Amino acid sequence: MRDKVKAAVIVEPGKVETRYFPYRKLEEGAMLMKMEMSGICGTDKHSYKGENHLYAGTQREQFTPYPLIPGHENVGIVAEITEEARQRLEFYGQELKEGDRVVMCCDVMCGNCYECRNTFGFTWCNNFKTYGVNISCEDPPHLFGGWAEYMYITPDVFVYKIPDDMSPEVAVLTEPMACTYSLDKAKGFSAMPSEGFCSGDTVLIQGVGPIGLCHLIKAQILGAGEVIAIDRSEFRLNMAKEFGADHLINAAETTSEERLAIVKDLTYGRGPDVVVDCVGLPEVFIEGLEMLSNGGVFIEEGAFVETGTAQVSPHRHLLAKNARLLGMVNHAFTGYYPSMKLMQKYGKYFPFEKIVTHRYKIEDAEAALLKSMELDSMKVVITP
Amino acid sequence: MRDKVKAAVIVEPGKVETRYFPYRKLEEGAMLMKMEMSGICGTDKHSYKGENHLYAGTQREQFTPYPLIPGHENVGIVAEITEEARQRLEFYGQELKEGDRVVMCCDVMCGNCYECRNTFGFTWCNNFKTYGVNISCEDPPHLFGGWAEYMYITPDVFVYKIPDDMSPEVAVLTEPMACTYSLDKAKGFSAMPSEGFCSGDTVLIQGVGPIGLCHLIKAQILGAGEVIAIDRSEFRLNMAKEFGADHLINAAETTSEERLAIVKDLTYGRGPDVVVDCVGLPEVFIEGLEMLSNGGVFIEEGAFVETGTAQVSPHRHLLAKNARLLGMVNHAFTGYYPSMKLMQKYGKYFPFEKIVTHRYKIEDAEAALLKSMELDSMKVVITP
Amino acid sequence: MRDKVKAAVIVEPGKVETRYFPYRKLEEGAMLMKMEMSGICGTDKHSYKGENHLYAGTQREQFTPYPLIPGHENVGIVAEITEEARQRLEFYGQELKEGDRVVMCCDVMCGNCYECRNTFGFTWCNNFKTYGVNISCEDPPHLFGGWAEYMYITPDVFVYKIPDDMSPEVAVLTEPMACTYSLDKAKGFSAMPSEGFCSGDTVLIQGVGPIGLCHLIKAQILGAGEVIAIDRSEFRLNMAKEFGADHLINAAETTSEERLAIVKDLTYGRGPDVVVDCVGLPEVFIEGLEMLSNGGVFIEEGAFVETGTAQVSPHRHLLAKNARLLGMVNHAFTGYYPSMKLMQKYGKYFPFEKIVTHRYKIEDAEAALLKSMELDSMKVVITP
Amino acid sequence: MRDKVKAAVIVEPGKVETRYFPYRKLEEGAMLMKMEMSGICGTDKHSYKGENHLYAGTQREQFTPYPLIPGHENVGIVAEITEEARQRLEFYGQELKEGDRVVMCCDVMCGNCYECRNTFGFTWCNNFKTYGVNISCEDPPHLFGGWAEYMYITPDVFVYKIPDDMSPEVAVLTEPMACTYSLDKAKGFSAMPSEGFCSGDTVLIQGVGPIGLCHLIKAQILGAGEVIAIDRSEFRLNMAKEFGADHLINAAETTSEERLAIVKDLTYGRGPDVVVDCVGLPEVFIEGLEMLSNGGVFIEEGAFVETGTAQVSPHRHLLAKNARLLGMVNHAFTGYYPSMKLMQKYGKYFPFEKIVTHRYKIEDAEAALLKSMELDSMKVVITP
Repeated sequence: MRDKVKAAVIVEPGKVETRYFPYRKLEEGAMLMKMEMSGICGTDKHSYKGENHLYAGTQREQFTPYPLIPGHENVGIVAEITEEARQRLEFYGQELKEGDRVVMCCDVMCGNCYECRNTFGFTWCNNFKTYGVNISCEDPPHLFGGWAEYMYITPDVFVYKIPDDMSPEVAVLTEPMACTYSLDKAKGFSAMPSEGFCSGDTVLIQGVGPIGLCHLIKAQILGAGEVIAIDRSEFRLNMAKEFGADHLINAAETTSEERLAIVKDLTYGRGPDVVVDCVGLPEVFIEGLEMLSNGGVFIEEGAFVETGTAQVSPHRHLLAKNARLLGMVNHAFTGYYPSMKLMQKYGKYFPFEKIVTHRYKIEDAEAALLKSMELDSMKVVITP
Repeated sequence: MRDKVKAAVIVEPGKVETRYFPYRKLEEGAMLMKMEMSGICGTDKHSYKGENHLYAGTQREQFTPYPLIPGHENVGIVAEITEEARQRLEFYGQELKEGDRVVMCCDVMCGNCYECRNTFGFTWCNNFKTYGVNISCEDPPHLFGGWAEYMYITPDVFVYKIPDDMSPEVAVLTEPMACTYSLDKAKGFSAMPSEGFCSGDTVLIQGVGPIGLCHLIKAQILGAGEVIAIDRSEFRLNMAKEFGADHLINAAETTSEERLAIVKDLTYGRGPDVVVDCVGLPEVFIEGLEMLSNGGVFIEEGAFVETGTAQVSPHRHLLAKNARLLGMVNHAFTGYYPSMKLMQKYGKYFPFEKIVTHRYKIEDAEAALLKSMELDSMKVVITP
Repeated sequence: MRDKVKAAVIVEPGKVETRYFPYRKLEEGAMLMKMEMSGICGTDKHSYKGENHLYAGTQREQFTPYPLIPGHENVGIVAEITEEARQRLEFYGQELKEGDRVVMCCDVMCGNCYECRNTFGFTWCNNFKTYGVNISCEDPPHLFGGWAEYMYITPDVFVYKIPDDMSPEVAVLTEPMACTYSLDKAKGFSAMPSEGFCSGDTVLIQGVGPIGLCHLIKAQILGAGEVIAIDRSEFRLNMAKEFGADHLINAAETTSEERLAIVKDLTYGRGPDVVVDCVGLPEVFIEGLEMLSNGGVFIEEGAFVETGTAQVSPHRHLLAKNARLLGMVNHAFTGYYPSMKLMQKYGKYFPFEKIVTHRYKIEDAEAALLKSMELDSMKVVITP
Repeated sequence: MRDKVKAAVIVEPGKVETRYFPYRKLEEGAMLMKMEMSGICGTDKHSYKGENHLYAGTQREQFTPYPLIPGHENVGIVAEITEEARQRLEFYGQELKEGDRVVMCCDVMCGNCYECRNTFGFTWCNNFKTYGVNISCEDPPHLFGGWAEYMYITPDVFVYKIPDDMSPEVAVLTEPMACTYSLDKAKGFSAMPSEGFCSGDTVLIQGVGPIGLCHLIKAQILGAGEVIAIDRSEFRLNMAKEFGADHLINAAETTSEERLAIVKDLTYGRGPDVVVDCVGLPEVFIEGLEMLSNGGVFIEEGAFVETGTAQVSPHRHLLAKNARLLGMVNHAFTGYYPSMKLMQKYGKYFPFEKIVTHRYKIEDAEAALLKSMELDSMKVVITP
């Protein structure tokens, strides 16, 4: 059964193939996970398009390695597990056995560098590896991405048990929901009224694709007041509305000046208290900075790869308005369980499973990628 | 005696004159302050040079009004005081009488706008006035700046009693020291190691003129580890050293690439945990962002007027390194007493009075301004 | 019409009468508010029962003055307003006119003491007055409480406009919802996992009367995971369930040991991350401290008057578990609008209007008080 | 040489003996450390006196195991090291070799429990071990405490390289200085004036033995204003003065009422903004709570073992003054390097080496313990 494991592979930018990999015996501490579902994220699109300059300007700067099995938002079932892994792989120390359903944390850290020893759970590790992103499938055991029948879970990975009643459509959102940690962070600024993200604050989301939608929901779980969504897609704006957005602005039908005027009008001339950029393009970034209120928080969540530069005025965009800017790359492995708990608790208000709008088989991975780039999709997933 | 009050006036950009103003009877609640000393700040230089576009992009955007008596870092003596002012003007409610020495808070807020009611002590007031900065001396009672024999203190100003043993040279630094509040703010990020400004962190100050030097001192009062100072002036770097800088970099003798390499080397390849930009020019801003460590805090404290734009990459400068950027305009009126307390307590370690390097008379205000722009001066002051 | 204003008066502990007061002409800056609704709060019950030792151990320590018109959770309509008050009374500077519906902030501060000048919006003022709590109706203009036909609003009060579509049943909860600010505060601890109030954390509320219920709701608006409610009243526990509680514990049917065991079991042996004491009795306080997890936050919100002492072990209850304890008296005047915004935004999830379970006329104020102390009531209100 | 390693052993409460242990070959990953110096801490005194009930009320509750080699504040030299340990034991990944001087982190965590995976560096581990505190010397390799010629460093310990110019007298303070992390934590409250530990705040230390003195110093490194020290020992108060205390109160010569009055007087009736209890007795705890200002922070740092209960009023001590109480047990392993950096940087202001007042040989460990309990000692150390 498993000597020919099927997987989708980006062999080079713009080229996706279905390939078969030999099954390899597990080393002690490892586990084999049968895939239930794997999400498509912006990073996968970047890998496909060859926008592969990651972590520019840091000690872990790198380029995407090809060939690559994509997929880092992964839900699966324990298919085979070694003795040591039963006690060690699960994040909170729960015992694992065959048949357990789990989400895995795609980021694997070395544990020994300065960042690992000091920053706990943030993937600033100088030697980090991310399943589906920067581990090539060239070398055995090959299965380092979720767009496959099976994944090979090395002994240094963390997995998280899924509640019995949680569908794969919800579980697959654990990772993107963990990415909204920046909003939790912004809460830390809120001791003084009008600074940071306070209860009742107006939150604006630039770009309500999957990551933007997760932030839109999370903002409401954390006590936002009015929520404004901007996007070029009517489909996505409608979903934003269904998930609680109070105001929608279609970027395809407005100029930047018009958007600034609309937002000013919606906020009594003050601008939103929190702006989250989930697009990552320079012009969107600068528009967000322009909109931000005095003492507001701007969260940069979209520019996961190098996308160019914007003309920032230290006076106008930063000093004059006492702005706080937070860059947010990745998330802590401690964020997975809280994200699951939130989706369980607030599922009655937010129909998370509707976020998955399209499902594709491994063989159709390229079609899936293309669909995920169209404006009438939200989260697109791969199922074996 | 006071019917001809002498003052230095910037009548238009580039032109300073000595003028005389009539003394006006005090309205109830007001006070007349005999000047002991008034500092020259970057804002005064901007007024002189005609760089007068303030608070760009905010609801309180404005242009410097001329003619103007400069001077907002003011120390003086209660010369005449109305009954009501005795009980009300002093910030902590201490009774005032003739002869008391005080520092005044230059910023006066309306108390009724959204910002005043929500942000407490931050000068985001939509109708704010700042002595020496945006109140012309055209209209009576004229005396709205510190480069004069007397100042007219309106009933909505706060003043702060000076400890008996505090010299005017130290008291005059109360306002600039209050500007270092951004570093207190940065402490709020520090719950997680490697994020924010933690004990023992490396702090880099870009530009060690008076404001930069105050930040350099404050960083040490708040538990910085190694401190790095960058400036074009050997004179200022030497003062930085005297005030505790561990490493000095002369920007006139190095290229940006060289400075980046030096700083990287001093910080084990990680960059400083905190960077404070006290210069405010676009190229300095971008250099600071490049230097910053993962999870580091960048404080923009220099660009008090519009000085142009820098090419910022949302990926490289913000997201990839989880940077936190804080813009810091002005300070709270609650910051004056704490600043005085710090200067009293830590005066045994930091010889604050040496920061005042040059004294000029009102008649020599233009020479004072020119001196303050030279590289062999630190804080230049005007005494009557 | 208004020369005989009817009001309920606590003339001495245990004795409530209906009295009539003369209408007094408004001083400049003042306003007359026609009452729509006034809530009964624990403080009113304390006033009635003669438990009147307030703010023990502080500079503003005091005793309730009788006779007193109770009522500090007040909703009404602008009946008559002076010129100056039109521009000044509304918190955000919106113009007021006859017929506007408003909530008023019961706390009035002097503005001049150390606390007022430093703590912004917290009612630590050494000279503070609270409508319905510590201003006797003995002296003119008498109308200083909400259980009346009209209230006299002095020029130093803040009022807040109510959205058109907000019922008095919701608006009357603005003040108690503002009291949940402690949970916002607890968010400030949350930068490190397992410290403070993080997304997905388990929150336990001791006592789900009106204040407890508000905290239970607010905890969910701020991203709590599982929520546990403890109370002696089945009626109140059922309401807690309707408002989202995941687990209910009836304190009348369990011993303290049993409750500790149940809570331990519900939390994998770790205890709740956040405990909010809305009862205020020593035995409840100590039970909460026992339950709290490592690094947990305990919020004391119930002991508004002196209620006795508990045996606290500095080792066991504080140090050994790195506990954080927050005392929370009162709330900031900045909390009123955010509370309204939250109730508007999250009203679709939480049917706030159901919290008001009983309505009484002014003449029936004593019956109302007695009802509010019974276990089958939630918020009891007085309407003229 | 090392087949007879000498060590001081508490064989049972009140009984100290010198014993010899066999030297055991190192397992892979381990290291042998030749002791330079080991401090005596309150915990050692508790072990000696049989006050051995630790972490009461938590999942890691336990009792001190005897026989025990005490000593968890340890400085030494790498005597023998295995290959793997060279790359792994040093906290920041620096390579280790024979002859390197290091401080070791006494706390060893399991890495797999809920606390380890969520709380990073805090010793809440359910299976934790602390050298010198809860690892008996009964079983091989025996050498689990610092009052010995050598210590056996297991592969799961962290060690920290010491700067070349740092004397053992300073290095030995790394651990106690790391315990002052609570003050860093308190900085996180300081966004709003009058809450938390702000610049210029008055800090009161109850008990200026070694831990109290470290807090007194750290408070000044973090920007305290006036500092008040209370102790029964004139010797210790004099050292507090030398290290910057502004006011001294001898608890042996004053009643509690007198101390409350003195402190009130020193703080304009408001009480200290921060109180740190480094004594841990119930009566001291309650006195500290009484003294605390509105919105102040009380840090419990002294009650490391169960010492009895105090009568706490939820109203008076917590709610009425919006108090914040922080329990602080232990410290993060991330705190060692920052502590060293602070001692290097601020050694010119604070003569850390003077804190070590007495030195004893291993054979004289009991005399050392007795001396450490006398009022004329500060830090007492054991040298081989």
